[in-house]
Amino acid sequence: MIPHPYFLYLGHSVDEIGIKTSRGLAVFRGEDCVGEFRHDDCPLTLGLKRMSFEEAVAAGARTLVLGIANAGGRLGRDLVDDAEAALAAGLNVASGLHQRLRDEPRLVAAAAKYGKTLYDVRDPADDLEVGNGKARAGLRLLTVGTDCSVGKMYTTLQLARALQARKIAADFRATGQTGILIAGSGVPLDAVIADFISGAIEQVSPARTDGGWDLIEGQGSLFHPSFAGVSTGLLHGAQPDALVLCHEPGRPHMRGLPHYQLPDLAECLEANLRVARLTNPNVIPVGIAFNTSKMDPQAARALCAETAAAFDLPCVDPVAMGVEPIIDRILACFAPSTSATTASR
Amino acid sequence: MIPHPYFLYLGHSVDEIGIKTSRGLAVFRGEDCVGEFRHDDCPLTLGLKRMSFEEAVAAGARTLVLGIANAGGRLGRDLVDDAEAALAAGLNVASGLHQRLRDEPRLVAAAAKYGKTLYDVRDPADDLEVGNGKARAGLRLLTVGTDCSVGKMYTTLQLARALQARKIAADFRATGQTGILIAGSGVPLDAVIADFISGAIEQVSPARTDGGWDLIEGQGSLFHPSFAGVSTGLLHGAQPDALVLCHEPGRPHMRGLPHYQLPDLAECLEANLRVARLTNPNVIPVGIAFNTSKMDPQAARALCAETAAAFDLPCVDPVAMGVEPIIDRILACFAPSTSATTASR
Repeated sequence: MIPHPYFLYLGHSVDEIGIKTSRGLAVFRGEDCVGEFRHDDCPLTLGLKRMSFEEAVAAGARTLVLGIANAGGRLGRDLVDDAEAALAAGLNVASGLHQRLRDEPRLVAAAAKYGKTLYDVRDPADDLEVGNGKARAGLRLLTVGTDCSVGKMYTTLQLARALQARKIAADFRATGQTGILIAGSGVPLDAVIADFISGAIEQVSPARTDGGWDLIEGQGSLFHPSFAGVSTGLLHGAQPDALVLCHEPGRPHMRGLPHYQLPDLAECLEANLRVARLTNPNVIPVGIAFNTSKMDPQAARALCAETAAAFDLPCVDPVAMGVEPIIDRILACFAPSTSATTASR
Repeated sequence: MIPHPYFLYLGHSVDEIGIKTSRGLAVFRGEDCVGEFRHDDCPLTLGLKRMSFEEAVAAGARTLVLGIANAGGRLGRDLVDDAEAALAAGLNVASGLHQRLRDEPRLVAAAAKYGKTLYDVRDPADDLEVGNGKARAGLRLLTVGTDCSVGKMYTTLQLARALQARKIAADFRATGQTGILIAGSGVPLDAVIADFISGAIEQVSPARTDGGWDLIEGQGSLFHPSFAGVSTGLLHGAQPDALVLCHEPGRPHMRGLPHYQLPDLAECLEANLRVARLTNPNVIPVGIAFNTSKMDPQAARALCAETAAAFDLPCVDPVAMGVEPIIDRILACFAPSTSATTASR
């Protein structure tokens, strides 16, 4: 896998959602991150020490992670310039963008010159099969969302940790570049060939018989016209027993699409259940997860309570409030096996 | 493009659905096909003359089309042996399988040795963009289905021809390998990276302002657990004004999945309309197309009449009965522009 400690790249980013990979690593692999790189025009910070590439190497960093995202996932010229400088300073470079580092001749040449390695996290396995939809053993939970970037990965990771804390076997199954960097394995679902979407999920979350849970990271939204195909295949491949619906209250429009409104929560939940039932007719919702980071904490708690009552489901902000009410619901609905043992993340 | 005349490959195929690419070319490009290649254990025929590779070359063939399909789209050893022999005999080789001819060293070597070319029809364009869901000008019809291989391409081609026959501008927009070989262009949708499914369709069917129609070839089914992600992205990218639902009455189970039943027609139509409304809230159904090739003709007509009455939609077998009732419905629902002119296929 990719050598750590990591040095996290922010570059010229001005959009908090655009740096979600770097932030995810800072939050869930903070112990393996030595600092952050940002230009003077970047107003964002991960709360890590700002360093140059040379300072990062001196601090022990082994890999620069280009943890920023943009629609289409192209490598801009700024990014290539910075990655080249990082290689020259002695860092490997890892990227989760669609456009591959290995397809950029300047970076290939620089990596060769300085004896460093380029890691394209978004390369799917080459042995994927078409999905078969056959019922398989084990318990699976999938996070779904009203939109992209509403907290599905955070929620999934928090649920996995909370189950493990209760001594229940639980594995986080990563489906995006940030999740893969955090977990150390997974499938970069949006980079998979369209015919293999559901099959890739069947592979990343195979049958399990230890009584434990697979917590599968959701992607996109059935209501996002750019990415709903991915979300649909993910629902079918996951065969989820349980869904958690993720949402950011107050978001003005669908991510990247000012001409699209967010769906109604109830409509979104029902649509996800309807699609999920094709491969698991017994799927049920077990919770709602709000990203309330931009809200007043008291208003956030009131909204969660109100939503919980309206849907008869636990509703929390997994980061601010934890996920214990959702865990309680899961355990109430699915009797845990006494043979379950705690698995690693 | 690929040099014709074509020589159509059946190989060892025993499954009619598995040879649909070869058959599609025989039906819709018959004037450009000199014959068929099949082994002694192949009980199928396209009604073309059976020839050896050498006889095909003598008859003027320039390209062997490996027009057979299998789940996953791998090149078997038989296929590679035959393709190599065809190259040696003096034919180019074209394939729509997922696994590329150019990734098979024996074929690359043979093509170089004999001065022939390998054509991988399933290579998508490398300039695809993520879909944006913005409303665009023009009229679009999409065929959708209860399952894979129920006649969506045939229906779409017949609709395009029938509109052209009425002097209405109409273009067939191919989304699969057979359609692309017939039309000469298109997007191999199931080979596109998952994040670009809807964007690829926005590109293959751009805004049009001549009052004519784009007839977009559907793929898969919302109810096929292997491929519903593709079908979802296709619905969103197409922004269809009109849907035609395709079905093969009497099919015992979903293609390739004995453990999955076909959906109810009404449920399938409603699900497609619901998904399509995300990018075109005004979408309407304009017809139902049955593949009744395995039915008694009188029973087929009775079933079409009964279905038409139940759904208040024209219902025909496009091959056996033509598509005129659906064209009438389209023209009744969408007033044709007087400026429309007939476009090429």
